[in-house]
Amino acid sequence: MVMTNGGARAVARCAELGCPPYSDMEGGLYRAWLTPAYRATLDRVGQWMREAGMTTRIDAAANLIGRYEGTADAPPLLIGSHLDSVRNAGFYDGPLGVMLGIECVAALHEQGRRLPFPIEVIGFGDEEGSRFPAAMLTSKALAGLLETVPEMTDANGITLAEALAGFGSAPDRLVQARHPGARAYFEAHIEQGPVLEAEGLALGVVTGIAAQLRLSVTVAGTAGHAGTTSMPLRRDALAGAAEMVLAVETIARDDASDLVATVGRIEAMPGAANVIPGEVRFTVDIRAGENAHRDRAAKAILAALRAVADRRGLGIAIEQVHDLAASPCDADLAARLETALVAAGHPSRRLVSGAGHDAMVMASLAPTAMLFIRCREGISHNPAEHVDPADAQAALAVMLGFIMENA
Amino acid sequence: MVMTNGGARAVARCAELGCPPYSDMEGGLYRAWLTPAYRATLDRVGQWMREAGMTTRIDAAANLIGRYEGTADAPPLLIGSHLDSVRNAGFYDGPLGVMLGIECVAALHEQGRRLPFPIEVIGFGDEEGSRFPAAMLTSKALAGLLETVPEMTDANGITLAEALAGFGSAPDRLVQARHPGARAYFEAHIEQGPVLEAEGLALGVVTGIAAQLRLSVTVAGTAGHAGTTSMPLRRDALAGAAEMVLAVETIARDDASDLVATVGRIEAMPGAANVIPGEVRFTVDIRAGENAHRDRAAKAILAALRAVADRRGLGIAIEQVHDLAASPCDADLAARLETALVAAGHPSRRLVSGAGHDAMVMASLAPTAMLFIRCREGISHNPAEHVDPADAQAALAVMLGFIMENA
Repeated sequence: MVMTNGGARAVARCAELGCPPYSDMEGGLYRAWLTPAYRATLDRVGQWMREAGMTTRIDAAANLIGRYEGTADAPPLLIGSHLDSVRNAGFYDGPLGVMLGIECVAALHEQGRRLPFPIEVIGFGDEEGSRFPAAMLTSKALAGLLETVPEMTDANGITLAEALAGFGSAPDRLVQARHPGARAYFEAHIEQGPVLEAEGLALGVVTGIAAQLRLSVTVAGTAGHAGTTSMPLRRDALAGAAEMVLAVETIARDDASDLVATVGRIEAMPGAANVIPGEVRFTVDIRAGENAHRDRAAKAILAALRAVADRRGLGIAIEQVHDLAASPCDADLAARLETALVAAGHPSRRLVSGAGHDAMVMASLAPTAMLFIRCREGISHNPAEHVDPADAQAALAVMLGFIMENA
Repeated sequence: MVMTNGGARAVARCAELGCPPYSDMEGGLYRAWLTPAYRATLDRVGQWMREAGMTTRIDAAANLIGRYEGTADAPPLLIGSHLDSVRNAGFYDGPLGVMLGIECVAALHEQGRRLPFPIEVIGFGDEEGSRFPAAMLTSKALAGLLETVPEMTDANGITLAEALAGFGSAPDRLVQARHPGARAYFEAHIEQGPVLEAEGLALGVVTGIAAQLRLSVTVAGTAGHAGTTSMPLRRDALAGAAEMVLAVETIARDDASDLVATVGRIEAMPGAANVIPGEVRFTVDIRAGENAHRDRAAKAILAALRAVADRRGLGIAIEQVHDLAASPCDADLAARLETALVAAGHPSRRLVSGAGHDAMVMASLAPTAMLFIRCREGISHNPAEHVDPADAQAALAVMLGFIMENA
């Protein structure tokens, strides 16, 4: 029952949306919430939704929602992802999940099939947070998590309220955008990582969004002249930090699980080639599928860092700057999605999402399921982002299997 | 024959020169070549020289030279150091060597002693290079190493030629400032490092200025999302660089010699907490008393760095940005200085200077000898720079013993 060209059409539509008038920049894709490009995109995608047999509406958060009625007026199955992008984005991060939702409905519509529940395909307006300094505002609004209109301005000094009003949406309605309720929320999204490709898999079942902990570490040694301070007399903050960077890597590697830990930023002061660093600051980002797992790893990392500092006679200060709990997908839905995956001829593969998605917000409204689609070299947030149309087609088949199983 | 208060007076005079009108800044010491503070300093130090029985002159490079005649018109013994300072300097880096030279002559003068050669005490005008973008210009001029007047400007856009003319010195005379020749050049200087203090020694004989090699290293990995790239799939440029930093430290440490190696600057790109570093740049500064020793160490470091890159599948590019050959002090003079040190009741200690000094330039004019004086915690280029007057007194005694031995 899969439309043979559905996956390829979904990919082609993402590419079509990659240029003006659907992009706010020339020579690349940047589509921010509530901009002219965003308006043009809602118009175009809404047209595709209607062609697929849906009625369309734009909610108070400027999310685009297409509805395909069922045989009963039950709570709908939601299939969504986001239509906004980062600056100089790839075409598929977000829109592909929306396009595949449309293809699911198009396939049903073409065969005149109605399910015992409606399907709503949602294009969220703000997942990336690339215009205002907050992300996932629109899924939060739809999930009923916004209690006030956030007071924030974009880079041009336009407030969120002004942007909403300019789009034709009454700002105070944002807090009333809560969806009346759904049977489930499903999101297909590119993996944005290299794991599926490395394993030769097109698709994977997401078990949840990783728990994340971010640390800011300051190592204090003694600055000194690189030429006049003999090696035994040094308290080199950078040599100590280097040992700590390796400890972080070793702990995550040896765990041989979904645990990842990264030192992404490092700064040595005073930062002159002829001065022994007296102070080094670096970040540690720790993620795992389960909170307890992440916390065990963080504890091991903290202990290792302190041990290095003690052994070298260095000072150390560790500040926790972020703590995001894990957001598990619904276990039952994940099992059903895995059944659909295997039924479609794919090996079973479950993985944790290291990046955030609207699904983690939607989990407060309905049980969620997520399907990851392989992307080339794991590249995302970059014009080089690439999805094989065959993989999108495979995803469409699994999604339809999953939907029918749950009918 | 040592004046009992000579060392203390030398230290006190350095302190006196630490404030306006001898400093170009309020609340700290900054004395740059050819400034009003430099002029005031020459006036004051010239007065002290004349009180010690010397005649004074200012040469074409605005160096201050005091001359104490001998019983014969032989080439003089030069005793010098620099009168300029870095910004927000300590009092002793440079001036102490000049003041101790004056105290040597004052001690001879007080006893009416003349040696079979003249003594010239030199206060150099530019060792630090804190005004124009070049260091040791005035010892280079005195050693006859300047062939043209360098075309350079200070932070206020004043050219070197203008600054010289404003000081009353014909710029084109700078290249004719070559000293007619000397029997030896002696320099006493604070150690600017912690080695003597750590060993409980007041003084040490400098065997030479270390050979220095500076490398700029670029490590290339693959940037990736810190949440979505599993540990085995990473090519983390920072984790690789951390291993390299430790390799540099280990090679220098295990050498257990005068070899020092330092990574003072490091930069990870893109430098975001949630992105695996795709590129890291860092510096390596390698110094040793002998060229061959430094080169052996550099070879070992390069091999270690390349081995880390190979093992991790990282790219590496290494650029050599500086190569300063070792500048050995005269072996015979060093032996005589050591004899004077031991005769004065000090343990024998030879060490390499990791920092540059006018002596390394003067080596092209005459055989050189250098004496290091302990400074508290090795701190220099900082208002906290401190010298114990008793150590200055000990230095004075050794200097006089050395001079008499060489009479």
